[in-house]
Amino acid sequence: MLLGEVIGTIWATRKYEAVKGYKLQLLQPMNSNREKLGEPIIAVDTIGAGPHEIVFFITSSEAVIPMEVNMAPVDAAIVGIVDSINLEIKPEK
Amino acid sequence: MLLGEVIGTIWATRKYEAVKGYKLQLLQPMNSNREKLGEPIIAVDTIGAGPHEIVFFITSSEAVIPMEVNMAPVDAAIVGIVDSINLEIKPEK
Amino acid sequence: MLLGEVIGTIWATRKYEAVKGYKLQLLQPMNSNREKLGEPIIAVDTIGAGPHEIVFFITSSEAVIPMEVNMAPVDAAIVGIVDSINLEIKPEK
Amino acid sequence: MLLGEVIGTIWATRKYEAVKGYKLQLLQPMNSNREKLGEPIIAVDTIGAGPHEIVFFITSSEAVIPMEVNMAPVDAAIVGIVDSINLEIKPEK
Amino acid sequence: MLLGEVIGTIWATRKYEAVKGYKLQLLQPMNSNREKLGEPIIAVDTIGAGPHEIVFFITSSEAVIPMEVNMAPVDAAIVGIVDSINLEIKPEK
Repeated sequence: MLLGEVIGTIWATRKYEAVKGYKLQLLQPMNSNREKLGEPIIAVDTIGAGPHEIVFFITSSEAVIPMEVNMAPVDAAIVGIVDSINLEIKPEK
Repeated sequence: MLLGEVIGTIWATRKYEAVKGYKLQLLQPMNSNREKLGEPIIAVDTIGAGPHEIVFFITSSEAVIPMEVNMAPVDAAIVGIVDSINLEIKPEK
Repeated sequence: MLLGEVIGTIWATRKYEAVKGYKLQLLQPMNSNREKLGEPIIAVDTIGAGPHEIVFFITSSEAVIPMEVNMAPVDAAIVGIVDSINLEIKPEK
Repeated sequence: MLLGEVIGTIWATRKYEAVKGYKLQLLQPMNSNREKLGEPIIAVDTIGAGPHEIVFFITSSEAVIPMEVNMAPVDAAIVGIVDSINLEIKPEK
Repeated sequence: MLLGEVIGTIWATRKYEAVKGYKLQLLQPMNSNREKLGEPIIAVDTIGAGPHEIVFFITSSEAVIPMEVNMAPVDAAIVGIVDSINLEIKPEK
């Protein structure tokens, strides 16, 4: 899973039936220092993330699992909203 | 899912049976500012997007879901046509 | 799906049972202007493409679908042979 | 599978039900010389790796297999903890 | 599928149950001219490739197919050992 920030929303009236009713968020992928990584992607949101919240998301065919349908053409979904990132300090040896 | 613009069509008479009857669109992937991202890809279109429309598409083995067959060797499909992209302005703190 | 040109063949006598009997083509991926994209990959060919023909191919776990077995460790397959690519001219506004 | 070092942990209280109860580790991917490769990713850990241990991990939809649920939106999981890497010296010919 | 050279072996005593008993080879991906491509990856070997043999391997969730278990968290597997690569010379026109 990767980290990302919710930066916008996609509106589309003509779309495949199974994705209707789901919010499509625009996510900016980022690293663990909250620096941007590449270009924004579109993910289904079933958790209810708000604008500028930091989330972790999945990008594979398993992304359909959080939806209430069995089959949907979806390849990215928000899985959780990040409270904090704990970085381990490497001990001196 | 990623954003893309319909820039052409692929014609192929000799092809695998299950993809016959489906339109194969050439898509230029783009970012949320409509700038080109990488090279065009070929996607199945079951929504009916026209030339130069902005769509969002899926690239994974779930791409077969919009088709009327159960099994097809397809890894990209148009899922919806974009009406608008709403970018959230980051509030000053 | 991506475009590619058939540039060679792979011979292998010691291989996993389910891929025996299938032709393994070496494909050079290319863009819609027939310019090379990255390095050649190995794809199963059930369509019968000849040397230097332009094909479109799939790269995912759905690549096993054109084969006559239910299960095969295959991640790329030729899906069709391209007759022509129709690029839409963007209208002036 | 790729090599990685456990460099941190992700905390998230609002998340998809099926991933609750699983530890989410932050992994720095690395090559066989233990040099960093790209950006850290988030992986489910069912093996119990400690901070700074070298692990190998999977990144695909099969990543859900080590979990005790049948379905979970997960695309990366720690599969094992590395004891040693044996590099073969290429013989002179 | 991609070409690679067997360059080493991974030893891991603490690992997920379903991958126990399988040899984990370190592969250097390469192009059809045997030049290195990117960083080594870890693949399951059920064919029995020896050090420095050239193999072709799969990288997707289908990689579990060569194993004797139904489910295993594996995303790369050796599918065959290459005897020869036949490159087609492009005819002058």
